[in-house]
Amino acid sequence: MKIEILNTGTELLLGNTLNTHGGWFGKELFGMGLRVARQATVPDGDAIREAFEEIVDRADVLLITGGLGPTSDDLTREIVAETLGIELVQDEAAMRTLEVFFSARNKVMAEANLKQALVPVGADVLPNPNGTAPGLYLPPRINGRSNCAIFLLPGPPRELYPMFHEEVKPRIKALAGVENISDVLELKFTGIGESDFHQSIDAELAAIDGLEYGYCARIGEVDLRLIGKPEVIRFARDLAVDRFSGGLISEDGSSLEATVVRLLAEKSLKLASAESCTGGLIGSRITDVPGSSEVYTHGWITYSNEAKASQIGVDEALIAAHGAVSEEVAIAMAEGARKESGADIAISVTGIAGPGGGSPEKPIGTAWIALAAEGCGTSARRFFHPRNRLDFKESVSQSALDMIRRHLMKI
Amino acid sequence: MKIEILNTGTELLLGNTLNTHGGWFGKELFGMGLRVARQATVPDGDAIREAFEEIVDRADVLLITGGLGPTSDDLTREIVAETLGIELVQDEAAMRTLEVFFSARNKVMAEANLKQALVPVGADVLPNPNGTAPGLYLPPRINGRSNCAIFLLPGPPRELYPMFHEEVKPRIKALAGVENISDVLELKFTGIGESDFHQSIDAELAAIDGLEYGYCARIGEVDLRLIGKPEVIRFARDLAVDRFSGGLISEDGSSLEATVVRLLAEKSLKLASAESCTGGLIGSRITDVPGSSEVYTHGWITYSNEAKASQIGVDEALIAAHGAVSEEVAIAMAEGARKESGADIAISVTGIAGPGGGSPEKPIGTAWIALAAEGCGTSARRFFHPRNRLDFKESVSQSALDMIRRHLMKI
Repeated sequence: MKIEILNTGTELLLGNTLNTHGGWFGKELFGMGLRVARQATVPDGDAIREAFEEIVDRADVLLITGGLGPTSDDLTREIVAETLGIELVQDEAAMRTLEVFFSARNKVMAEANLKQALVPVGADVLPNPNGTAPGLYLPPRINGRSNCAIFLLPGPPRELYPMFHEEVKPRIKALAGVENISDVLELKFTGIGESDFHQSIDAELAAIDGLEYGYCARIGEVDLRLIGKPEVIRFARDLAVDRFSGGLISEDGSSLEATVVRLLAEKSLKLASAESCTGGLIGSRITDVPGSSEVYTHGWITYSNEAKASQIGVDEALIAAHGAVSEEVAIAMAEGARKESGADIAISVTGIAGPGGGSPEKPIGTAWIALAAEGCGTSARRFFHPRNRLDFKESVSQSALDMIRRHLMKI
Repeated sequence: MKIEILNTGTELLLGNTLNTHGGWFGKELFGMGLRVARQATVPDGDAIREAFEEIVDRADVLLITGGLGPTSDDLTREIVAETLGIELVQDEAAMRTLEVFFSARNKVMAEANLKQALVPVGADVLPNPNGTAPGLYLPPRINGRSNCAIFLLPGPPRELYPMFHEEVKPRIKALAGVENISDVLELKFTGIGESDFHQSIDAELAAIDGLEYGYCARIGEVDLRLIGKPEVIRFARDLAVDRFSGGLISEDGSSLEATVVRLLAEKSLKLASAESCTGGLIGSRITDVPGSSEVYTHGWITYSNEAKASQIGVDEALIAAHGAVSEEVAIAMAEGARKESGADIAISVTGIAGPGGGSPEKPIGTAWIALAAEGCGTSARRFFHPRNRLDFKESVSQSALDMIRRHLMKI
């Protein structure tokens, strides 16, 4: 079943309002085992007509948002009726609902609102308990021209979302007929590039019958999405996990930081952090996770050398000898943070974020990360992430969180 | 000039990844006095072909994102070349750039990456300093079929945004001709809601001849965008700044944290931070700003009560008497951080992020923020941001940074 989305609204194309509808519909429909074939955004007015004429001859289901309001640029209802050659008539029930809406709010209904009670002959009125614009449903073959089932829906999420669940979903289910539900699984990996996947397992995944898959690369992370029947997904999942087990963050959409917090909680371990170049980002990511206060107690943002020395006891002579961005200083930071906090594990980072401060020996993008753990000593690794300042911080925080994850999983 | 956007990527239609490209392009082009006529999103694969064939015969400029990666579902380059009947050839310069990218990272280039050096004959290669996929520009009439100027751009914002500014904007400007370009000014405000603007100056802005304007509301921030001739913008700017001067963050797009760092540097003052509920986010935002190491020296993430006591000398009896989220503890944290660091100014935050930990007296969303300053004593304010955990952290960090800004500007 070919489902298309048409979002109308000049504001969606000016960047004032983020268009979240495309993704939201996709997620909802995907949960029903259905896909969005195409999503388009057009400004208010005649552009709606052009797009509508195209889509209505191509799609099986069309979901249109916006343009049902009372103002002069709200024209969706009129354009759809005109294009299909269907008359608009005033609907008594829709009229009464409008009157109730305004009187419940002690407001006088403007004359402009009257047009919101206009309904194409043969269409269903979809009640809108959260606004003045009722939705409309035009079943396939309403006028002999089109086989497309057409939904006209309000733009604001607080009106759209409940209407979708109450009125649209049951009708789409009936149109789709069979329960052709697909499953989806998202595997998050880190420490592996998108091209490593391609090189290693892409051909094998492509050969699996009935599997759809895709990659989404983020900073320091690749998400592998598997779509198909449960047994097909299981097969593909085992293949990927077997090949890249060490890099697997989660199979349930959990972020790296959520995985780290969960592992710490399972082992009843406490974590401390000492950050220089990431400036608090590691702490912030950890504390994004609900319940992190159980496992994360102390953090230092030792941005200056003096702070490294006075707060977590890094010997200033060590900094003078090796530089603040060095294996020795990273190790001293991690050990100092562990000692000061009494935590089981301490992570430290020191690096050169740029745009200034690089040198031939230590170019911008260089970072040292150290992990000190009760009974395991301290280990340090050098990373090189030559990116812009913000991406560098994100990359280093990802590498640091992954060092903790690997330590906790003993990999 | 009819500009269309085509975003490719299955993930954009499954709801996993929010498609922010449509709005972003709209904003950028609007800033140049241009509009987006239509935006569409299609899944990877053959759907790209169908959409491309339609648009290329209709639009003057087409911006395509995504599908330039190394994997088998990255097909944009191939589909465009095939549809237009243009041969793809290996570009030596693109090849060298790829090799440098990998060798700079001490990585071996996968064979899959080779196809990223394929270029349609007659196209310009648009360098991508932030990733492996170069962009491509196919000028109008490259093959006699289409009058459309076609840009193939990478999907990830960190690669797309710089490439758009460096490579795409100048070419679109040349295509549009100077007479189509308007001026644009973006004023950032904080501490004022979008509805305050509506209430206070919207009608006056609407009455200014030749002015286009729009608001963009973010967490703790409203951006007012003014578009028109320089004298019209100046008039509108004066109106807005006059009305809301205390809330003006910047007139040049600078973020609140960049404004704070600039003000600290101008006054040669040092800042320290002590964060509980924001978990390092304030430090991270400050250190997002290049040059912040000159003004920001020490930060503490005192997530536990013990850390508040041992690291910045908050009396445990004070915590026991008033609770960790209290005016008294916020003040003690700020004063402790100032004393420990020797900084001129220290900011502290303590609050209840949720989802757990609220009470009738201190519901989730409650935060105390204190500022201790050399010679000015310590002041504290209570905030209430009843939002989800991440938005709460963002709101509190915004309020804290704004307290520093107002202190430095003496407002």
